[in-house]
Amino acid sequence: MRILLKNGTVLNVFTGEEEQVQVLIENDRIIGVGDYDEQDADETRDVSGRYICPGFIDGHIHIESTMLTPAEFARTVLPHGTTSVMADPHEIANVCGADGIRYMLEASEGLPLTVYIMLPSCVPATGFDESGAVLTAEDLEPFYSHPRVLGLAEVMDYPGVIARNEEIMKKIHSALRHRRTVNGHAPLLFGRELDSYIAAGIGDDHECSSVQEAKERIRKGQRVMIRQGTAAPNLRDLLPLMEEPWAHRCLLVSDDKHAADLLNNGHIDASIRVAVQNGKNPATAIRMATLWAAECFGLRGVGAIAPGYTADILILDDLYQIKIRDVYQKGHMIVENGRMLPWSPPAVHPDLEKNIRSSFHINVLSEKDFYMEQPGVRRCHVIRLVKHQLITEDWGTDIDFGKENGVDLNRDILKIAVIERHKNTGHKYIGFISGTGMKRGAAASSIAHDSHNLIIIGTNEADMAAAGNQVREMGGGCVAIDNGNILAELPLPVSGLMSDASARTTAEQNQKLRESERLLGVSSDVELFMLMAFTSLPVIPHLKITTQGLVDVDRQQMIPLYE
Amino acid sequence: MRILLKNGTVLNVFTGEEEQVQVLIENDRIIGVGDYDEQDADETRDVSGRYICPGFIDGHIHIESTMLTPAEFARTVLPHGTTSVMADPHEIANVCGADGIRYMLEASEGLPLTVYIMLPSCVPATGFDESGAVLTAEDLEPFYSHPRVLGLAEVMDYPGVIARNEEIMKKIHSALRHRRTVNGHAPLLFGRELDSYIAAGIGDDHECSSVQEAKERIRKGQRVMIRQGTAAPNLRDLLPLMEEPWAHRCLLVSDDKHAADLLNNGHIDASIRVAVQNGKNPATAIRMATLWAAECFGLRGVGAIAPGYTADILILDDLYQIKIRDVYQKGHMIVENGRMLPWSPPAVHPDLEKNIRSSFHINVLSEKDFYMEQPGVRRCHVIRLVKHQLITEDWGTDIDFGKENGVDLNRDILKIAVIERHKNTGHKYIGFISGTGMKRGAAASSIAHDSHNLIIIGTNEADMAAAGNQVREMGGGCVAIDNGNILAELPLPVSGLMSDASARTTAEQNQKLRESERLLGVSSDVELFMLMAFTSLPVIPHLKITTQGLVDVDRQQMIPLYE
Repeated sequence: MRILLKNGTVLNVFTGEEEQVQVLIENDRIIGVGDYDEQDADETRDVSGRYICPGFIDGHIHIESTMLTPAEFARTVLPHGTTSVMADPHEIANVCGADGIRYMLEASEGLPLTVYIMLPSCVPATGFDESGAVLTAEDLEPFYSHPRVLGLAEVMDYPGVIARNEEIMKKIHSALRHRRTVNGHAPLLFGRELDSYIAAGIGDDHECSSVQEAKERIRKGQRVMIRQGTAAPNLRDLLPLMEEPWAHRCLLVSDDKHAADLLNNGHIDASIRVAVQNGKNPATAIRMATLWAAECFGLRGVGAIAPGYTADILILDDLYQIKIRDVYQKGHMIVENGRMLPWSPPAVHPDLEKNIRSSFHINVLSEKDFYMEQPGVRRCHVIRLVKHQLITEDWGTDIDFGKENGVDLNRDILKIAVIERHKNTGHKYIGFISGTGMKRGAAASSIAHDSHNLIIIGTNEADMAAAGNQVREMGGGCVAIDNGNILAELPLPVSGLMSDASARTTAEQNQKLRESERLLGVSSDVELFMLMAFTSLPVIPHLKITTQGLVDVDRQQMIPLYE
Repeated sequence: MRILLKNGTVLNVFTGEEEQVQVLIENDRIIGVGDYDEQDADETRDVSGRYICPGFIDGHIHIESTMLTPAEFARTVLPHGTTSVMADPHEIANVCGADGIRYMLEASEGLPLTVYIMLPSCVPATGFDESGAVLTAEDLEPFYSHPRVLGLAEVMDYPGVIARNEEIMKKIHSALRHRRTVNGHAPLLFGRELDSYIAAGIGDDHECSSVQEAKERIRKGQRVMIRQGTAAPNLRDLLPLMEEPWAHRCLLVSDDKHAADLLNNGHIDASIRVAVQNGKNPATAIRMATLWAAECFGLRGVGAIAPGYTADILILDDLYQIKIRDVYQKGHMIVENGRMLPWSPPAVHPDLEKNIRSSFHINVLSEKDFYMEQPGVRRCHVIRLVKHQLITEDWGTDIDFGKENGVDLNRDILKIAVIERHKNTGHKYIGFISGTGMKRGAAASSIAHDSHNLIIIGTNEADMAAAGNQVREMGGGCVAIDNGNILAELPLPVSGLMSDASARTTAEQNQKLRESERLLGVSSDVELFMLMAFTSLPVIPHLKITTQGLVDVDRQQMIPLYE
């Protein structure tokens, strides 16, 4: 089947030129760019007055962060012109291990979006936590034979790399031996330490928040992924990179993007729009989003309108609004005039699907499980939230266990619990948290970085148990409960991280969840569920909590609750 | 072992900037670029006032064309700053098959020059000839596991590619399946045919002789190798490519370069000098000769002064004369102040060495072997040389076999013979050639593209036999003989293509050979040995000769001598 795209203006991503040429597609590939006419094709589509450019590539995303399944994610981003993503299934791998990676591969097989997989490098993220799985270099090795696996995902353990720790170096060497890419993650690393990190073979970074940080990395040979995530929109700060000699060493990524953000603002197209609205050349932004992204991963034949390239093609009304009219993926029109054409999601093997959907293993909880057997007053380490940040403080204060078993709403001191949920070990730890402003009820979630155990913050033990039990009932998800009544819930049955509902439903449920935070009395400037999800991540300073206890992140050691 | 290069100016090939930074080397790698001092190193070398840039890369060369062994080639080009080459052992493979490739790999193992190998795609070049070997896709396959094999060398059979012939497509697909590069060779192909050729997966071209030709290729996604060969110096014509948006898709190559040219003018450094002298930015030319060359082959960690990169480093006195002072290869200083430091060539396995040096198999020749049993006058096809070109004409004329057995010095008609020399089959063919101007004696050579059989042009049968026998005695080489006396000879015992003498000796012998052409009476504007070497290559129009007979190149068929 040959299709001719006639009378359009092609954006040549090799040169940045606009060319008046015809594009001939055969099956999944572009076979000609130049003088072709109707007689060369089975079907001719006139795209007069429109632009033809390659489909956009997101060089780094965690699909789980959208809370959507790969199919629903595809449905959401395709109308925005995304035809390929490099996904790091770090979250689901921390829950389901190699099966999590297998699920993401199977659930994206044959999608009208090409989902390349980068193998998660840090499962678990630290040794202080109980993740659902441990992935060694040997565990990752077999995945390199999969045609959609492009390398090793963000190596967050930069101290380990700088120290040349054996296990992380094995993972890096394995990727390099397979001639694949190793993605970086090293915020605010400079000078010698950065040199050492890069010299280990780390090819890029997506954590740059300043031009200075980015330029040092580009000068030292890394490619810079300009991130525009929902919670980390770095693009405006990095706009100066969208000029040479920097631009051709950059690409556009989203990292973590919420469903509502994708629906309302878009995906990589949104980054391009921001760039263009700030006076940047649209051709440069599109080259970053296409060819230069492919080059970062050593991908051949993707990211350009040229002979032999995969026919991932966008028809745009203009290069300023970046209004996407039609989307071709592998030569098939999948979005026509902004409207998604019908397609069916891939089938995942029933055993695997069942496994991924049975990720939540705890016994029914009772009020008693949250009660602390401690008489009188003790001085305790309390996790204190810092406004608008993910870091927390270690607040030493007296807790009177005689009153409300330690909860003190006047001083904004609540209970926080983390309960192991992967293997039903019964492991749990209960501590105190301050700074939420919550006045009643409890909130529970199965999203708790990076091990994704059950995390609960509450004003009383009964609601904490009820919230935990409701998450258990849903097989994963988020819930807000007050006095036994469900205020809002977001079921995440797919590994406790992803919804099986549509993007719109998921976004609406998430919105109601956000609104329920106010009903619990949470301060208006606190995003409770988001902050709660990071309170268990002992790589962000200063005091965090896991199933194993409190972690002093700065000293990288466990500490007791009592001072 | 850590070495610090202090106080130099680094040319940053990622950005084109000049940076005042220290460079720290550990063993074979650069480990730091920035603020380092003596205390970080075992040894500090002050390079104040000098430039530091990556070693030059020649992206496409046939080492056999220099007539030097890999070790002697390395000795010749290292002082010119070349630290890596991508070599296509097409010539030796046509003589010795897979053993020829093995020899080039073994003879370059551990050299202070990194010799990457591209696997010859067209052995034999055509079916009209008798080469020493046939290399199928299956024969090439095992070589992809060698760490220095980067892909498939120039695919000259563009009609075969456009027709999607099974055997050539198998070779291409094999390279692509191994995620390697496929080099192109498609002079003067444009439009649809070029699209079809590129779409097969051909990544670059080194045959461009015009800017128009090059720009079409770059727009269609190929990289363009700007060739500056001894006989094909395209650089001046292609200088306009040394500006963006073209430059970053180009690299510098030599293809075929004679020993004398390397000694007298240089290698890749000579191309950079020509560019700079013509007003081009030296940084752009050096980026083409380093990082962008590495990128063409998907090579990581080579071609830049950056952490983790191989310490192939040049210390230059300036960026205009490109005067190379010191050369580091894999962290070892190999050229100091323009002088080569001592090193030993690698040992090739004795059996393989013996095999490569016993490539010449024919019986002793006699006058009779060149005598044509034909009475009277016959109208014949005569190969007629065209001034300053490799193409020949098919000249139909009457030959009187009764006089001098057909040789007619008045009409400049000589005998030309091609004799199978690989397997001693006794196959030979004798025809007529016009346009050399030769008045006496004979010339013989074992360089006869692409099969490299024994080729002889002569004014009489006795000298033809004597010339052939002398080449046989040398085990390959070139010789000019007059009345039984040797006027000049160039022994090429290594597969009949390469000398085992030094570059200087080889160049001198070649010079004497060139001068002997005049002693034979050859016209002053004819390069006899060079033209003779191409008279057997039936891919260049119009009439050529092989051991099988005359080839009408335009119709791609054998024709009889007699009309």
